[in-house]
Amino acid sequence: MTKPMLQIALDSTDLSTAVEIAERVGGFVDIIEVGTILAFAEGMAAVRTLRERHPNHIIVCDMKTTDGGAILARMAFSAGANWITVSAAAHVATIAACKKVADEFGGEIQIELYGNWNLDDARQWVAMGITQAIYHRSRDAELAGVNWTSADLGRMRALSELGLELSITGGIVPEDIHLFDGISAKAFIAGRALASESGKATAEALRTEINKYW
Amino acid sequence: MTKPMLQIALDSTDLSTAVEIAERVGGFVDIIEVGTILAFAEGMAAVRTLRERHPNHIIVCDMKTTDGGAILARMAFSAGANWITVSAAAHVATIAACKKVADEFGGEIQIELYGNWNLDDARQWVAMGITQAIYHRSRDAELAGVNWTSADLGRMRALSELGLELSITGGIVPEDIHLFDGISAKAFIAGRALASESGKATAEALRTEINKYW
Repeated sequence: MTKPMLQIALDSTDLSTAVEIAERVGGFVDIIEVGTILAFAEGMAAVRTLRERHPNHIIVCDMKTTDGGAILARMAFSAGANWITVSAAAHVATIAACKKVADEFGGEIQIELYGNWNLDDARQWVAMGITQAIYHRSRDAELAGVNWTSADLGRMRALSELGLELSITGGIVPEDIHLFDGISAKAFIAGRALASESGKATAEALRTEINKYW
Repeated sequence: MTKPMLQIALDSTDLSTAVEIAERVGGFVDIIEVGTILAFAEGMAAVRTLRERHPNHIIVCDMKTTDGGAILARMAFSAGANWITVSAAAHVATIAACKKVADEFGGEIQIELYGNWNLDDARQWVAMGITQAIYHRSRDAELAGVNWTSADLGRMRALSELGLELSITGGIVPEDIHLFDGISAKAFIAGRALASESGKATAEALRTEINKYW
């Protein structure tokens, strides 16, 4: 199992704030995410700008693609994204369209596990050659106080066993990392926790915990 | 039952094309949609520009909101949208967050029926005060040759009976309108069919058919 990476989610509503945060955290994260909020606020200019400023980082465009897969994927990969996210709720034809464009660019797609997906869906994704998914507490569920449950962890283990690498998000703190022991974790994603004044210390604490389990 | 309106979906990858199409079709459509593709391409500038140029049209921002509901909703309504779309796959807390912001702005949310939703979900939306949903063949399913089925029409009837007004989309042509007789149709949505040279004639043909059934 490879060592999980750290991903900053940039979800500001303006590009200048996002650029400033990326500048600050670039040295201690592996992956820079243009969050859905930022992408809808500023469009693909956000991806292009961050690509130019961070040529060596993996850049993810979190589009949660639900339809119009080929066009959205082409837009994001053309702008410089390495990975894009695709909603688990999308029609399988949409997922296939995204995968095809990703392959053309040497990029990857990540299935965002929203809605009523099940392990048969996951098997279908794997059969399509997809290797990544994103598992999270929704931001709104998190705000509503819903924590990581044993059901969450069971599903993560099942997805790992199918061969999917998971990026895990939703209020991730160093104290939670041990929960994910044994899971094929591609990355841990955080926003405010890494963007804040104490972001570097948090990143170090996350890496210390990661090193204990992977 | 009110008479269904006509909605143009602007899904170009640049704002200037979208502005040009909106200019051309504004006289014969009721609703202008900033499609997901356009919104991701150009950001909220697309909503602001179309709001300024079309002050009397209903403007929908098709965000297919899946998470981060309050922030995304506020962005779109602040930019001048009257309605935004929210994915049926979103956590109920996300849907509630969008609804709350919509109420604050006097706007509305439309549930986009993607993924494995069911009528219990729909009852929950209605209980939350939501009055609109969008029913479609996915663009990718349409490209894959999947047509309107009796299962589609049955689900639409069931949603109508629960009190949801439906905007219907996915390769809508005048010859299909009769299929939706008896359904509470808020709008018929088309993109290329209305944007083309023959768009005005298509709009007239759609209205003629609509007038037969509503």
